[in-house]
Amino acid sequence: MVNLSPFFAPKSIAVIGVSRNPNKVGHVIFKNLIEGGFEGEIIPINPETNQILNYKVFASITHVKKKVDLAIIAVPAELVMKVTHECHQAGVKHVLILTAGFKEAGKADLEEALAKYLRATKMRCIGVNCLGIYDAYNKIDALFIPRYRLRRPQPGGISFVCQSGAIGAAITDIATEQHHKFSKFVSYGNATDVDESDLLEEISEDKNTKVICLYLEGVKDGEKFYKTLMNVARKKPIVALKGGLSAAGSQAALSHTGSLAGAREVYEGIFKQTGVIQVETLEEMFDVASIIEKGLVFKGGKTLVMTNGGGYGILSTDYISQTKHLSMAQLSKKTVQELRKAFPPHVNVHNPLDLVGDATTDRYRVALEICVQDEGIDAILLIALYQTPLITTDIVEVISEMHRQTKKPIVVVSTGGEFTENLSDALEESGLPTFSFPERALAAMNKLVWYETKKKR
Amino acid sequence: MVNLSPFFAPKSIAVIGVSRNPNKVGHVIFKNLIEGGFEGEIIPINPETNQILNYKVFASITHVKKKVDLAIIAVPAELVMKVTHECHQAGVKHVLILTAGFKEAGKADLEEALAKYLRATKMRCIGVNCLGIYDAYNKIDALFIPRYRLRRPQPGGISFVCQSGAIGAAITDIATEQHHKFSKFVSYGNATDVDESDLLEEISEDKNTKVICLYLEGVKDGEKFYKTLMNVARKKPIVALKGGLSAAGSQAALSHTGSLAGAREVYEGIFKQTGVIQVETLEEMFDVASIIEKGLVFKGGKTLVMTNGGGYGILSTDYISQTKHLSMAQLSKKTVQELRKAFPPHVNVHNPLDLVGDATTDRYRVALEICVQDEGIDAILLIALYQTPLITTDIVEVISEMHRQTKKPIVVVSTGGEFTENLSDALEESGLPTFSFPERALAAMNKLVWYETKKKR
Repeated sequence: MVNLSPFFAPKSIAVIGVSRNPNKVGHVIFKNLIEGGFEGEIIPINPETNQILNYKVFASITHVKKKVDLAIIAVPAELVMKVTHECHQAGVKHVLILTAGFKEAGKADLEEALAKYLRATKMRCIGVNCLGIYDAYNKIDALFIPRYRLRRPQPGGISFVCQSGAIGAAITDIATEQHHKFSKFVSYGNATDVDESDLLEEISEDKNTKVICLYLEGVKDGEKFYKTLMNVARKKPIVALKGGLSAAGSQAALSHTGSLAGAREVYEGIFKQTGVIQVETLEEMFDVASIIEKGLVFKGGKTLVMTNGGGYGILSTDYISQTKHLSMAQLSKKTVQELRKAFPPHVNVHNPLDLVGDATTDRYRVALEICVQDEGIDAILLIALYQTPLITTDIVEVISEMHRQTKKPIVVVSTGGEFTENLSDALEESGLPTFSFPERALAAMNKLVWYETKKKR
Repeated sequence: MVNLSPFFAPKSIAVIGVSRNPNKVGHVIFKNLIEGGFEGEIIPINPETNQILNYKVFASITHVKKKVDLAIIAVPAELVMKVTHECHQAGVKHVLILTAGFKEAGKADLEEALAKYLRATKMRCIGVNCLGIYDAYNKIDALFIPRYRLRRPQPGGISFVCQSGAIGAAITDIATEQHHKFSKFVSYGNATDVDESDLLEEISEDKNTKVICLYLEGVKDGEKFYKTLMNVARKKPIVALKGGLSAAGSQAALSHTGSLAGAREVYEGIFKQTGVIQVETLEEMFDVASIIEKGLVFKGGKTLVMTNGGGYGILSTDYISQTKHLSMAQLSKKTVQELRKAFPPHVNVHNPLDLVGDATTDRYRVALEICVQDEGIDAILLIALYQTPLITTDIVEVISEMHRQTKKPIVVVSTGGEFTENLSDALEESGLPTFSFPERALAAMNKLVWYETKKKR
């Protein structure tokens, strides 16, 4: 059993290598910990100064008399071993090493020596060559990027385990912009000690995590990884993107995180067998994760497309016919009768259900009320183009209310500028997943129907 | 030869059916014409009132003594024929009919009678059942959606011909949000008279249009369409999305715009043969169009991937290996030597060229200066993740300056929140296409390399 909780819930954190220069990694991460609102003690270490940002600075971790749960190491590569040894002397059991310049820079010896030392002392280490850790609930902001360049996500249900630091930063930033909410984010770099399997195991126990996103380039211990996925995927949905699936990409991975990326078939086989949802892009990863995070469950793939834009109805139908796990739901006779009775004759009572350009908010309400009763419909793709004049802004309440009343998953698509974005944001706040384009929503739904079917078996 | 210019450059416009009720179509479009800054005369027609928004209202178009270049008709379906006849009496030759309730609503007779009348009188008509026309240069805002719901694009090089009104509205709105710039937008609905071929022909003569985007569901006259594409695609790049390619989607198209959508193979064959760039989604349509609009020309598919995020380098390499027309460029010996000399040893001098997480703005400048000289590189995918601490905001000037100096196409990828978006917006203003994800950029580049190869033959 791994015990990595001090990485995510430490009571005291030492930062080793806090420069007075505000642009240096050690300074940035120290400042972020403070600004992130960490409620425990933060102890800066630097032999060359006494005070930084009004904090008393210690010359060495060995001078600190209190218990330190986590040491963050931001010193040059050639000093990492010495500092890690000092941490051991001071009784620190968990270290986060940000420093680069190991295996990925051709210095495999240096890294192997460190790994050996960590094994011998039973210390646990995240890194080297990583971006750090973020825990939204525990207010741990141990990322070395300034907060104005990389916005931090609000507390929520997504945890993101990412081998690559820069990708982790960029994706967390855009995910925050798109209102995705996180529990934990961790970039683990070279995986000198703690690897993707350990982190998956640890996060699978986190009650706040509803879905785990995983970006990885290589796996050192394939058997451990497989066993971990078998175990963790039973507890939490995992959405995974594997970089370096192509021969050329695999070569590039070697010089990035020193990983041996393996054959496409091997990874695809493992993901399929263990019930991991494999995606092709980081964009798709968050499309899928955002639907899971909202708690939607797909009992099947029979989909109703409801729209006020006929063209989107057609494009959605085209797209569904190309997917493996979605199909156009057949409306029951009762549904057809009720819809015909409720609407003027120019409304197209089929699937796609085209409420046409003069659709009012009330037409959506009535259509939803009728269609959620239809047992032949597993999910509703609700396309609402807010540009059409008769839709009022209270359509947000109508859709939200229906979402509260039914177990049928409703995924909303709205394309547009500021007016549209405001309404989509309001729907997201009410717990509905929203998308800008139908194909993106349907691609994610297709993966989720596969996942639910796999889970049942 | 079609003469549709009065639709896009009229000197006087009559709006028939301007209600006093500000929510009605006729009122909205009248107001939009005024707010859009139309510099000619606008004449409202309504038999039941004398004045609207301080304009003198005429009871009938036949009462107007001046020459009217364009009449916009927004009366109920049953009055359209009468009003069109009055337009003919008044000498109006061009009518835009917004009214729905014809073929798409099962009233094929009504539409056929109108079509016959238009043919007999040689009047030209855009519509019925359409959203209208927008011309950014001529300041014609003849769209019936309020400006706060649907933002209007700035003048630029994209023209968008869209059969579906709601899709046209939604896409124009989001395109504007994403800073895409338009010359003309036209939604042509049921194509009772003027069809997609006529519009393509007309817009191909527009000097402001650099690329034509086309969304269509069905084509009535296949031979005319084919000939038009053969002719127009020589003059302007066309990016096309065909709705209703699947059997079920085709059925849905019939009840949307009364179109008979044809077999997938037929359309794909026509597009390929005529050099039309076919896309799968509206998102992809604007990805492709935005690169053309910026004037980038791809002489081949040999691509250099430059990045400060190793993971994106790997994912881009994976993606490129799956495309048909892109490949990873081989760096020349000279390039490799110069890069090695310029950079510290931990920079990975390969393709992908990983400038690594501590890349400075200057490292990007030097890398670009060296690589644009390499004849083995046809295009550069420049990934700049602005989250990393050593990148300064003047990277925008560095990239823009290089873009001005070289003919090599540079496509920029940056993922992130507000800080990133601001820098991307600045690059777009300097004439560089920017994307949030590498796969999206590469998919568009792949299509464009195909297009350039096709054009040469």
